[in-house]
Amino acid sequence: MAPLSPRLVVPVDVKKLPREQKVPLHNRWHPDIPPVADVTEGELFRVEMVDWSGGRVRDDNSADDLKFMDFTIAHYLSGPLRIVDSEGVPASPGDLLAVEICNLGPLPGDEWGYTAILERENGGGFLTDHFPSARKAIWYFEGIYACSPQIPGVRFPGLTHPGVVGTAPSLELLNIWNEREKSLSETSLETIKLCEVLHQRPLAHLPTPENCLLGKVQEGTAEWHIIANEAARTIAGRENGGNCDIKNLSRGSRIYLPVFVEGANLSTGDMHFSQGDGEISLCGAIEMSGFLELKCEIIRGGMKEYLTPVGPTPLHVSPIFEIGPVEPRFSEWLVFEGISVDESGKQHFLDASVAYKRAVLNAIEYLSKFGYSKEQVYLLLSCCPCEGRISGIVDSPNAVTTLAIPTAIFDQDIKPKRVKGRPLGGPQLRRLPDLLSCSNHGRLPATQDRSGTSAP
Amino acid sequence: MAPLSPRLVVPVDVKKLPREQKVPLHNRWHPDIPPVADVTEGELFRVEMVDWSGGRVRDDNSADDLKFMDFTIAHYLSGPLRIVDSEGVPASPGDLLAVEICNLGPLPGDEWGYTAILERENGGGFLTDHFPSARKAIWYFEGIYACSPQIPGVRFPGLTHPGVVGTAPSLELLNIWNEREKSLSETSLETIKLCEVLHQRPLAHLPTPENCLLGKVQEGTAEWHIIANEAARTIAGRENGGNCDIKNLSRGSRIYLPVFVEGANLSTGDMHFSQGDGEISLCGAIEMSGFLELKCEIIRGGMKEYLTPVGPTPLHVSPIFEIGPVEPRFSEWLVFEGISVDESGKQHFLDASVAYKRAVLNAIEYLSKFGYSKEQVYLLLSCCPCEGRISGIVDSPNAVTTLAIPTAIFDQDIKPKRVKGRPLGGPQLRRLPDLLSCSNHGRLPATQDRSGTSAP
Amino acid sequence: MAPLSPRLVVPVDVKKLPREQKVPLHNRWHPDIPPVADVTEGELFRVEMVDWSGGRVRDDNSADDLKFMDFTIAHYLSGPLRIVDSEGVPASPGDLLAVEICNLGPLPGDEWGYTAILERENGGGFLTDHFPSARKAIWYFEGIYACSPQIPGVRFPGLTHPGVVGTAPSLELLNIWNEREKSLSETSLETIKLCEVLHQRPLAHLPTPENCLLGKVQEGTAEWHIIANEAARTIAGRENGGNCDIKNLSRGSRIYLPVFVEGANLSTGDMHFSQGDGEISLCGAIEMSGFLELKCEIIRGGMKEYLTPVGPTPLHVSPIFEIGPVEPRFSEWLVFEGISVDESGKQHFLDASVAYKRAVLNAIEYLSKFGYSKEQVYLLLSCCPCEGRISGIVDSPNAVTTLAIPTAIFDQDIKPKRVKGRPLGGPQLRRLPDLLSCSNHGRLPATQDRSGTSAP
Amino acid sequence: MAPLSPRLVVPVDVKKLPREQKVPLHNRWHPDIPPVADVTEGELFRVEMVDWSGGRVRDDNSADDLKFMDFTIAHYLSGPLRIVDSEGVPASPGDLLAVEICNLGPLPGDEWGYTAILERENGGGFLTDHFPSARKAIWYFEGIYACSPQIPGVRFPGLTHPGVVGTAPSLELLNIWNEREKSLSETSLETIKLCEVLHQRPLAHLPTPENCLLGKVQEGTAEWHIIANEAARTIAGRENGGNCDIKNLSRGSRIYLPVFVEGANLSTGDMHFSQGDGEISLCGAIEMSGFLELKCEIIRGGMKEYLTPVGPTPLHVSPIFEIGPVEPRFSEWLVFEGISVDESGKQHFLDASVAYKRAVLNAIEYLSKFGYSKEQVYLLLSCCPCEGRISGIVDSPNAVTTLAIPTAIFDQDIKPKRVKGRPLGGPQLRRLPDLLSCSNHGRLPATQDRSGTSAP
Repeated sequence: MAPLSPRLVVPVDVKKLPREQKVPLHNRWHPDIPPVADVTEGELFRVEMVDWSGGRVRDDNSADDLKFMDFTIAHYLSGPLRIVDSEGVPASPGDLLAVEICNLGPLPGDEWGYTAILERENGGGFLTDHFPSARKAIWYFEGIYACSPQIPGVRFPGLTHPGVVGTAPSLELLNIWNEREKSLSETSLETIKLCEVLHQRPLAHLPTPENCLLGKVQEGTAEWHIIANEAARTIAGRENGGNCDIKNLSRGSRIYLPVFVEGANLSTGDMHFSQGDGEISLCGAIEMSGFLELKCEIIRGGMKEYLTPVGPTPLHVSPIFEIGPVEPRFSEWLVFEGISVDESGKQHFLDASVAYKRAVLNAIEYLSKFGYSKEQVYLLLSCCPCEGRISGIVDSPNAVTTLAIPTAIFDQDIKPKRVKGRPLGGPQLRRLPDLLSCSNHGRLPATQDRSGTSAP
Repeated sequence: MAPLSPRLVVPVDVKKLPREQKVPLHNRWHPDIPPVADVTEGELFRVEMVDWSGGRVRDDNSADDLKFMDFTIAHYLSGPLRIVDSEGVPASPGDLLAVEICNLGPLPGDEWGYTAILERENGGGFLTDHFPSARKAIWYFEGIYACSPQIPGVRFPGLTHPGVVGTAPSLELLNIWNEREKSLSETSLETIKLCEVLHQRPLAHLPTPENCLLGKVQEGTAEWHIIANEAARTIAGRENGGNCDIKNLSRGSRIYLPVFVEGANLSTGDMHFSQGDGEISLCGAIEMSGFLELKCEIIRGGMKEYLTPVGPTPLHVSPIFEIGPVEPRFSEWLVFEGISVDESGKQHFLDASVAYKRAVLNAIEYLSKFGYSKEQVYLLLSCCPCEGRISGIVDSPNAVTTLAIPTAIFDQDIKPKRVKGRPLGGPQLRRLPDLLSCSNHGRLPATQDRSGTSAP
Repeated sequence: MAPLSPRLVVPVDVKKLPREQKVPLHNRWHPDIPPVADVTEGELFRVEMVDWSGGRVRDDNSADDLKFMDFTIAHYLSGPLRIVDSEGVPASPGDLLAVEICNLGPLPGDEWGYTAILERENGGGFLTDHFPSARKAIWYFEGIYACSPQIPGVRFPGLTHPGVVGTAPSLELLNIWNEREKSLSETSLETIKLCEVLHQRPLAHLPTPENCLLGKVQEGTAEWHIIANEAARTIAGRENGGNCDIKNLSRGSRIYLPVFVEGANLSTGDMHFSQGDGEISLCGAIEMSGFLELKCEIIRGGMKEYLTPVGPTPLHVSPIFEIGPVEPRFSEWLVFEGISVDESGKQHFLDASVAYKRAVLNAIEYLSKFGYSKEQVYLLLSCCPCEGRISGIVDSPNAVTTLAIPTAIFDQDIKPKRVKGRPLGGPQLRRLPDLLSCSNHGRLPATQDRSGTSAP
Repeated sequence: MAPLSPRLVVPVDVKKLPREQKVPLHNRWHPDIPPVADVTEGELFRVEMVDWSGGRVRDDNSADDLKFMDFTIAHYLSGPLRIVDSEGVPASPGDLLAVEICNLGPLPGDEWGYTAILERENGGGFLTDHFPSARKAIWYFEGIYACSPQIPGVRFPGLTHPGVVGTAPSLELLNIWNEREKSLSETSLETIKLCEVLHQRPLAHLPTPENCLLGKVQEGTAEWHIIANEAARTIAGRENGGNCDIKNLSRGSRIYLPVFVEGANLSTGDMHFSQGDGEISLCGAIEMSGFLELKCEIIRGGMKEYLTPVGPTPLHVSPIFEIGPVEPRFSEWLVFEGISVDESGKQHFLDASVAYKRAVLNAIEYLSKFGYSKEQVYLLLSCCPCEGRISGIVDSPNAVTTLAIPTAIFDQDIKPKRVKGRPLGGPQLRRLPDLLSCSNHGRLPATQDRSGTSAP
């Protein structure tokens, strides 16, 4: 009898360093990073992956690991995989690669994750001008649910997904990336400041050989140096998919990726147990190691047939996808609104980023009335299944965005109430601890004080 | 026996002009526009409203009415309503006004609407640089469904909502609005161009007495002139709610509005049979006349208790809301992605507006392969129940947005398929017309050619 | 300009008696009841209807009207309608009639309904041996929501639907009905008792001229006497649809009805604002007057093509339907189980009716711990959007059924909790009355005591 | 660092026989079957289980294994588990045991299952008079999806659940079971025939030592003989939960089980990848081995507080449960109706079992028009996520039930259509095989002919 399980094409061992893995990992995009395995379309296969940091973030009470993190390591990816059809002919540039996520999850024995605020000087996040210091929350998984000793009173089912899924760029596409991002990074900060409020961080992450890991390409060789100096960083999502951080790429979804190189060279990584729209604190999903079970199909000529470029070259395309059928179901949502007036009161012109920032700040202020510190809420909104919408983008001068939070994730009623004398955030019902809500596997005592995320 | 129906507090007659209505309408925000009626909290009441244009857009095959529209008329609102508690004490500044939308819909006998692209020189829209000419699609309603002779092969249930719902601003808040918007409108266009691509339209709509309608304030009086010159235009959503164009403010939802003046002075208007997130073509919802059945509750002191300002004054707040339980249910979505690289290939820094523009353009290109003109798709994405998300806002330099379209609204399968020789958008199945799909009430022959929206 | 509204083909005036309506009603099934109007396929049309009793049940505090009700009046139906195609050719026996419910609701000005327990001697209900006395609860509608002064603390959106929708039977089918039901009614009660526990009511409702209303057939004529003596009663659902009481036949659903006579002769009535699966208290939905907006399509030959008979003749078919897209959304359900062991402890063999009875009794016992009388819960479970499932029908000897109740309809948490000392059903939170929850339009003071449904 | 994974309290090895497992299994209910492990409330733990048959059904093309199956083996269960609180005090009779299913799934390496029709002479099923011969379909799992070479063109996400979950009965409760079931089994078949149509199978499964497996109780001992002769069979669901076959007991659900013996003695088994309401073909779920990850909470005194008996003793209670948040989402359903008239045309009185049988037969007839054999549809409706409802149980004489089938599980459009000349079930679109739809892991060629389930 043939085996019934998916074929494991990339195993990982979370006790080993990224560069020690049996099947080598990589952390850059480049057409010349060679495939680590072949996969046939229609075949069910399994890819395991370390967390984005390759295990540098620890299950402890200090955020020091994140405070001093070197982000040139991001993200350790599994692959590339060369996709071939049933006759062994590889996917070709111009094809469309349909990837179905049949299953995914944490690695058995490693069922935990973390959400972090990054230090302002080390990358920051969407609200780094409000939350400049590194913080960390640890999440433990109980099957579909996550809960955190650092953010008590909250528990939710994960909409688990890979933060990164993409095909390798062609050299031509890579050059486009490098040029446009270099161009941006050379823009005067003064100019940029005029239109956005997120100015503390590097404008773009340009190629660097530092901490570069290139799979089967041996470090220190001439080939390695060439690739390392031009390979794209993985932080931004781009035409090839990549770090798109779309929280709905979960079980049962299908992603249609453009193929730029022979074999497609599919890579994945950066598993998220859960993430809110925007992933606002940057390291904001519940980051973890994990596995994917995938199937691929090659739609020959599909890139031309389905993806019309929006931009100056035929390469300016974007992936499309279909949502899967088993997303967590919530029926009650509390929604916060934001308009494109910034915190200083300045009016911006239809700027959805500014409007979303204000929606998030409104939500943080509101939820902090229920016994949480603002850092806790910032972390929570980064990783819980909240939805960020562009509601109005034409009613000048105000873009209107909304942030919808499922109320069922809280163990208290967070809706506004006409109640005299009820202490907001105080004990609404004196009750015994609900033992089903979060066990922490007997490891950590649930924090009584709700204000303590891990600072360095 | 007391009447069982909601009390009609604002009737409208769609055959009359806005300024002829029995209960006078208004089209500006100002604290001194007097209430037209009192409403007691807990009472179920009905408000009728003309469409935003007050009937200037006709059910015909020409877009001339929109091409030459004077937007200083926007939006004709019903109200203001003075909200009092059971003892007759009005809502006070600092309270929170909870408004429940118990029901809503088109006005009996007027079951139709329209979606339009505005002329670039006359306001444009999110994609005005791509679609500079006025176009119009008429929609007929069949109960919960809408269909259009101009966009055949599409039919969907409406997520009906008022585009505008808000309380009156205080004079202090009004001044804040006028100052910040004036300041923006005086910005050099060159500067603005650096950060956005939507530069053809007025940056802000400043107060003007032109076409000003102020309810019970008689035109031409000294009072009228004072108010008309300082009253805020209704086009932008702001701290008081207003034209937030949030498509989920539908049946069963609750809106929590800050109260800035005694009595709250609640106004509503701009009914939408349906709208997509963003309302991208500007006049992009299915615009109609309609009615609301509402209940209010005053949460005394609730503004202070629940809404913490994000900005320099205590007035920098935003409404919050809860979503209702009867939104249309879709289970299959095709999703388009956009990154913050514009159509010229230029890289922008975490700009969600640019990213959303690209997602929308990707969707338009894709759907135009299925037999539709791009204008038709632009109109369709403005008004169908599609969802626009801010998926990633931290992975510099690319913001990632998504636009999710429910596939069930089409009468053909729009998902990518591995099918040799299938003519995209061609007849997949020769069949008799599905008489349930759109009757047009026997009025208009269904357009055989799918490419004909109404041009002037 | 042609009218945009649906054509009103059957108007009703709720202030008039059933036999005084302008377009005559009927309350029997018979092929010879002549159509009152023609309807063309593809046309949107409106049918209004009185409540099943034709206005005999009053909006008051007494259940006398139900206690002494004569059920030979049931149900007053609107129609029959003769359905023709665009060339005027009527639907023919063997066709399938697709009926789409585009919209529906209460009649403007008559927004209320009632739910009743019937007197054991006068029909009873599913639990008549437990609840032998007539009771009534009045429901007031606030748009999508219903609430009742007799059952305080509960409010829910309606899944509104017609209890009765059907085509006229052919004479051959009518004879089959009359014969099989007569045969059942002549069965010895002793025999029946062996297998079911619902033995207090008539086994079947046979034809009777009493209170017979036959539309355009004038009472007292020879024709009337012939029809009245053989026309089928409307209480049972049958091959033609009829009183199927399927709560999901709501907005946007499509019903495929077999056509047995020329023109199909479609009739509808018995509007329900809401109903639980089973409609257990018999007069158990929220009964009301109302309107339907419908479209029809004739699928020529569709009965043969799609409906294979299960039974001895080609007429032994059943309607099929598709569920609409706007049903109320609930995400949390508390579920009660029942097995086919009756209240005396007697084991029945895979009897789903017995098992469902026990599930309902379990739910009534449980909910009565939260401050309600058992009569109140019985009424509530009859009309709220609860779901009754046949979960297991093969694990002899126990059928297993479940009754799932959406928890969001209650203003208190009804889930089991590990809470010491919390008084079940007592005040969990002392709070001001939530004025949004149920206004009763200022008509009736909300009952403070939760135990008072209307007895005679 | 403590381990992060759930504690494995019952491991199984599917290559070993049930009686060879390291932690012994059992296949009867009895208070004296000793616990195999202790579990503390709040602890996350893992229980593995063999399929109900202990591996007797093979992944092959013959139904012989089921044709000659001895059902005295059913069901091999994992447990009993003794539940204690944090101080080591066990659950006590009168408590309520809340069990949360945090996760579940197939066992890694054993990702397949089967659905079977049983031979009429060997147990039959709900429709055994129509389908008397054994048949088998094998299902392969691709993450959340299942597909079968025997039923091509169908693929669906599983609503995975344990068929059996229950606590041990007390001796008193066991006696009640044995007495009432013995009493039923002694009923004259003639009498039973009057009220039901499922008469070919044993009326009840009484205790028998044959194939009895009693966990730690050694076979052949005096104790074993005593227990084996009085222990209840596991086929029926009862007051303790047991084989309730409720398809919604999936990820995230909570079950509240009454506690009858000290420690509760929780047992589980009979894992189903998916099941339709009713599990109509008896061995009708997708049967598999699997694992559960569970948490428990003891609600002290909760049985008395929450579960009021419906029956002659305090033991006549039933479990209750809450549904989890990640059930597969479907938005389009085709629904079949059934009334309580049997296939011979005979009228039954409000018999939901007869009505459900007719709804199922209607669905089988209908779907068999789309290229499937009736056996295939019978198998499919047993295991796909279809919903069986008791829609009307009071409109005498007809009970009305409905069977709702999600249309998205088919690769063709199964809705009725007004299409001239379209061959029903024929190729609607000539297309390349969709490689994502079912890979079978390269093991079995997809059956081209859709009519071949495995016969002996």
